[in-house]
Amino acid sequence: MTSLGIGLIGTGYMGKCHALAWNAVAAVFGDVARPRLAVLAEHSQELADRKAQELGFARATGDWRTVVTDPAVDVVSITTPNAFHPEMAIAALEAGKHVWCEKPMATRLPDAERMLAAACASGKVAALGYNYIQNPIIRLIRHLLDDGEIGEVNHVRLEMDEDFMADPEALFYWKSEASSGHGALDDFGVHALSLIRVLFGGVRRVCGQMAKPYADRPVQGGGRRAVETYDIATTLIELETGASGVIALNRSAWGRKGRIFMQLFGSKGTIVYDQERMNEVQLYTVDGLTDRQGFRTILTGPQHPPYDRFIPAPGHGLGFNDLKVIECRELIRRLDGERAHLIEFEDGICIERTVDAIARSAHEGRWVEVEGR
Amino acid sequence: MTSLGIGLIGTGYMGKCHALAWNAVAAVFGDVARPRLAVLAEHSQELADRKAQELGFARATGDWRTVVTDPAVDVVSITTPNAFHPEMAIAALEAGKHVWCEKPMATRLPDAERMLAAACASGKVAALGYNYIQNPIIRLIRHLLDDGEIGEVNHVRLEMDEDFMADPEALFYWKSEASSGHGALDDFGVHALSLIRVLFGGVRRVCGQMAKPYADRPVQGGGRRAVETYDIATTLIELETGASGVIALNRSAWGRKGRIFMQLFGSKGTIVYDQERMNEVQLYTVDGLTDRQGFRTILTGPQHPPYDRFIPAPGHGLGFNDLKVIECRELIRRLDGERAHLIEFEDGICIERTVDAIARSAHEGRWVEVEGR
Amino acid sequence: MTSLGIGLIGTGYMGKCHALAWNAVAAVFGDVARPRLAVLAEHSQELADRKAQELGFARATGDWRTVVTDPAVDVVSITTPNAFHPEMAIAALEAGKHVWCEKPMATRLPDAERMLAAACASGKVAALGYNYIQNPIIRLIRHLLDDGEIGEVNHVRLEMDEDFMADPEALFYWKSEASSGHGALDDFGVHALSLIRVLFGGVRRVCGQMAKPYADRPVQGGGRRAVETYDIATTLIELETGASGVIALNRSAWGRKGRIFMQLFGSKGTIVYDQERMNEVQLYTVDGLTDRQGFRTILTGPQHPPYDRFIPAPGHGLGFNDLKVIECRELIRRLDGERAHLIEFEDGICIERTVDAIARSAHEGRWVEVEGR
Amino acid sequence: MTSLGIGLIGTGYMGKCHALAWNAVAAVFGDVARPRLAVLAEHSQELADRKAQELGFARATGDWRTVVTDPAVDVVSITTPNAFHPEMAIAALEAGKHVWCEKPMATRLPDAERMLAAACASGKVAALGYNYIQNPIIRLIRHLLDDGEIGEVNHVRLEMDEDFMADPEALFYWKSEASSGHGALDDFGVHALSLIRVLFGGVRRVCGQMAKPYADRPVQGGGRRAVETYDIATTLIELETGASGVIALNRSAWGRKGRIFMQLFGSKGTIVYDQERMNEVQLYTVDGLTDRQGFRTILTGPQHPPYDRFIPAPGHGLGFNDLKVIECRELIRRLDGERAHLIEFEDGICIERTVDAIARSAHEGRWVEVEGR
Repeated sequence: MTSLGIGLIGTGYMGKCHALAWNAVAAVFGDVARPRLAVLAEHSQELADRKAQELGFARATGDWRTVVTDPAVDVVSITTPNAFHPEMAIAALEAGKHVWCEKPMATRLPDAERMLAAACASGKVAALGYNYIQNPIIRLIRHLLDDGEIGEVNHVRLEMDEDFMADPEALFYWKSEASSGHGALDDFGVHALSLIRVLFGGVRRVCGQMAKPYADRPVQGGGRRAVETYDIATTLIELETGASGVIALNRSAWGRKGRIFMQLFGSKGTIVYDQERMNEVQLYTVDGLTDRQGFRTILTGPQHPPYDRFIPAPGHGLGFNDLKVIECRELIRRLDGERAHLIEFEDGICIERTVDAIARSAHEGRWVEVEGR
Repeated sequence: MTSLGIGLIGTGYMGKCHALAWNAVAAVFGDVARPRLAVLAEHSQELADRKAQELGFARATGDWRTVVTDPAVDVVSITTPNAFHPEMAIAALEAGKHVWCEKPMATRLPDAERMLAAACASGKVAALGYNYIQNPIIRLIRHLLDDGEIGEVNHVRLEMDEDFMADPEALFYWKSEASSGHGALDDFGVHALSLIRVLFGGVRRVCGQMAKPYADRPVQGGGRRAVETYDIATTLIELETGASGVIALNRSAWGRKGRIFMQLFGSKGTIVYDQERMNEVQLYTVDGLTDRQGFRTILTGPQHPPYDRFIPAPGHGLGFNDLKVIECRELIRRLDGERAHLIEFEDGICIERTVDAIARSAHEGRWVEVEGR
Repeated sequence: MTSLGIGLIGTGYMGKCHALAWNAVAAVFGDVARPRLAVLAEHSQELADRKAQELGFARATGDWRTVVTDPAVDVVSITTPNAFHPEMAIAALEAGKHVWCEKPMATRLPDAERMLAAACASGKVAALGYNYIQNPIIRLIRHLLDDGEIGEVNHVRLEMDEDFMADPEALFYWKSEASSGHGALDDFGVHALSLIRVLFGGVRRVCGQMAKPYADRPVQGGGRRAVETYDIATTLIELETGASGVIALNRSAWGRKGRIFMQLFGSKGTIVYDQERMNEVQLYTVDGLTDRQGFRTILTGPQHPPYDRFIPAPGHGLGFNDLKVIECRELIRRLDGERAHLIEFEDGICIERTVDAIARSAHEGRWVEVEGR
Repeated sequence: MTSLGIGLIGTGYMGKCHALAWNAVAAVFGDVARPRLAVLAEHSQELADRKAQELGFARATGDWRTVVTDPAVDVVSITTPNAFHPEMAIAALEAGKHVWCEKPMATRLPDAERMLAAACASGKVAALGYNYIQNPIIRLIRHLLDDGEIGEVNHVRLEMDEDFMADPEALFYWKSEASSGHGALDDFGVHALSLIRVLFGGVRRVCGQMAKPYADRPVQGGGRRAVETYDIATTLIELETGASGVIALNRSAWGRKGRIFMQLFGSKGTIVYDQERMNEVQLYTVDGLTDRQGFRTILTGPQHPPYDRFIPAPGHGLGFNDLKVIECRELIRRLDGERAHLIEFEDGICIERTVDAIARSAHEGRWVEVEGR
């Protein structure tokens, strides 16, 4: 076990989340060397210094470029706003560093394609931060699918809903500007797509609909401005496996706080998952006497690795931040040349291409094939 | 209060359900005259005699035509297989009887249109049996919407799932034959559409997808036969109100027994309903302190009429059959010239036209406008 | 199948409920003769006449004694206030009628003992109205226990909560007077005890606590009056089987509407039931792989007789009033000399004796043995 | 902000949990100096060395006494088996260190009393590890109570259930030996009591019952041995506030993994909490229109401090280990002379005395007053 040198760019929420993960991974898992938190970058030296102290990094810089070239750094965590990902990730890869970049890859598909090219050229590991797939429950679901517990999945429904855009009188801000992207589709649709990716692989065809619940919003200082993005997106899908389905996204869904509701219908059973109760999954199988069949609520526990590395007793509950620690361990596994449960640029680009296809299908009112899926 | 004379055609489950309702309506509500259960028809005199005894009807016949012309009959309950509805309903209306016909109107749209024409020509009441809309919870939802409790509804999701077609090794039977209709779409999609009808009115545009989870099924005696109907149907929708949404139907959804899951997203709140827990509704509103907001589970009680006519205490629960008693009372209200909560042929035909549009859109892979919505 | 002649005394909610059951039992079950609704009594002839019309009874009387002696009557339904039960039930039994009396037997234990003596002397059937035990779910639970599905039950917890006494500013009325009984204990504790009776048999020892959430209540016209009954009662129990447990009753439990929450812990599994979701039961068993165990929510369906007689499809839900129809069928079964799922006076008296023991134990602050359990 | 020097004794699960908390507290909260992880003790130098590397401690020792006297240490985390707490805590306090000791204080009440005396004599902070009270939901509940949101609480029910002793054929081990304590009562009853402590203060009187679901258990090598502890404990309680209630504990409750179910009934509403869904709480209040009242499920979010320090978005979920980080922050607050949400020895001893009273009341079959509550 050699100790990895870590560079971190960005110290907002996701930066903190990466830092917590790098800090905790050795203690939680007990089977990796404690990483060296080498250097951290923020837009000013002052802020960087303060954050380095809080987050436990040895050095700090106001210039992110010094991170990617620092000889003490093996892996660069990139947690800046999405628009900065391409430049930073490509620079790091070209400097021979491994990259752990928050999702999505970029705000425009061509940039994401360039990132993939840089990763391929570098021969380095280029991983994406897709927390939700790291829930032990999601691995359990994959095991259940692999075991044929619910037979062949023929239909899937995925909903992702939050309410941070639900207030019609909230002030217009950048998330309502076209420059920020399509709206709910890329803002968090990628999470839904990441789950489909790890559970089922590619999406073949899509037929989307995007909607604006509110035509305009008040502007600071008075007046109203037309909303340019779509807070709601729904799409019919057809998977590579042949299964049909639907993905429904709504970031103006009052009362939903972090809901990702997934229903997987198979020939021998059904699996239901709700991210707002992330320590549970429901499983229905056609077993035993018909008068005692029902959806079973499975609580996570040590039987669902790597829950056991966090808590030895079942039913006590992991939290959202713990998922990042798991992702961090998977990244290290990958760096060690092992098989890891991780979305790398090769898979990430398929997610971005699917987003692009959905947006086009919605604008053109027709089914669109996903290319390079 | 004059006592109505009742004729019943068909004594399968829905016939029994109508009979129970006619038997109970006076006792439950206490404000209508006890109906006279005059005559009942089955395909043989012998079966008819037995059923008349069980269900409390005075006379019995093996010929349904004698029911529609019987002078003692004011209202004809039609509960035979769907293919018989048009002939029977039209005959009854032409004989000057009111009609209470189970959903859907017919197996083919032109027949339904003829039924509507007959109803208009007759000047009689022609009501359809759409039980689910009679749940006091659905009326509460309508009140909540009318009160603006969740503001303007901008997005709706409706799922209807059962598992009676979920077993891939169940023998091929008539529900898999093309002659039975499209599949999940008309087999129970009409229920979902009935809820949309009473809550929101018309559907403007649809874009559907229909799928076969199993390509073929075993045939009695050996071999397999290709399935001709679609056990799964999903459709993007746009309502007349401008709201977007999706309807997802699956009659091969293992574990789902009578699920109708409805999510109504508004500018000030959200309503969630699950038919499998038909005595509950969930309501989220943006009121009060932000640290104590949440989905509220409202249990039905005497505050939700006409629950109070069944049970004086809250939380004790109505059953599915009780909904028919409520529908019966609404029909009597309508016959008395009052405003009733009921789907008559005028509304029923809009549901059938929407089904037709969804099927076409699915076959053609494009959005279709619903005509005469 | 001979047709039973029915007499009904009392037409409040439970009288209506009995009438609905007598009206529906033949149609629902299809295997019993349609009862003759012979005569009904109310305290005035006028009210009796009106109710007879509503409820479908042939005759009406203002004198209940004419019901118990009427030659056309085989069974007398007694649904008057509890204080009247002894006199009426004894008169009916002495007149050679079968009795179907609402729970509890009486307001004082000696009266209940006299009722039991009269029943024994008469040789007639004397049944009590304990609706909750008629839920198909409760029968399923008994089957599960008999099958050893959860092994030997070693601990039980039963809660029964409603909120009709929860408002501290509600006016003082008879339920707060000592003459009405102990309070929550006998007001609805008997329901909890009826479930224990049919599932486990006798209660050996009890140690109760009774509490008054509100010392006094406002009196109509002004001032306040001290509350004399206990809206809360909790008792430790030890069953004849040796299992330990607790029964907790609260009729001032805000938000609880008809909750009866039952947890049965066994050596191989656990059963959980909540009356507010009366069409569901939860079952945990130690089967299969440990990573996929969990509480299974079983929805009622045709596999749970006699649900099938009401509705042929699963998951559609029975209501509270349907339980009375089931009880009615069980009573007829008993009258036909068959084994029935019913609480008769012999069992009812054990429930009353347990109530008495709990009250004494609470007053004396010690464990009390239940006699004649 | 001065940096605290930390010593840790014991590196089992709770030791790891303390280490993770000391590692994360500065990064999570951003308002405390990063603690110096000075020295860690295990029973061998070799294990200690390995753990120091994993957990990020600078030095390691095989002798815990060197930790309590180390000048670089300000606070000693004690996470060894309960029997060792008194000696270690007293030594640390006498050496002038602050102590953070896992619950319970000791295995015998006199030892706990000695610990309290040592804490008082030292003038140092002596805190106990009672994780569950640190859930932001518990703080929210306290705010709700303080705000009078549910009026005056007049009845409480608390259940704590797990299934680690549920298998009757699991081998006899130390938890079934009398030397380990009473059983469920002290093994985890203290958690239930800690919640009552922070929400309501003292317990006045108790009347307990303890039960053995299984009389004996198999012994390794053959034969069976009589179980000496009580896996089930139930107690009636009366709080200092006058509220009545019950606490039910079961460590052989199949299917329950980490359930702490709490029902608080007040004069204006009810609060319900289930630790297995630790990011939710249910609140019923008597507000607004009666037809739309219900239990509201509140999901934790940034409105519930200090959730916001972990995650800026609501509904994403904290985990069990996060509670230790919060406890750590509270301890630092206390060390800084601020008011903290923490159970110190003064309160901890009241919990131990209550446990003792319950055990005595169960053995003597009578109500017992809690002394020094």
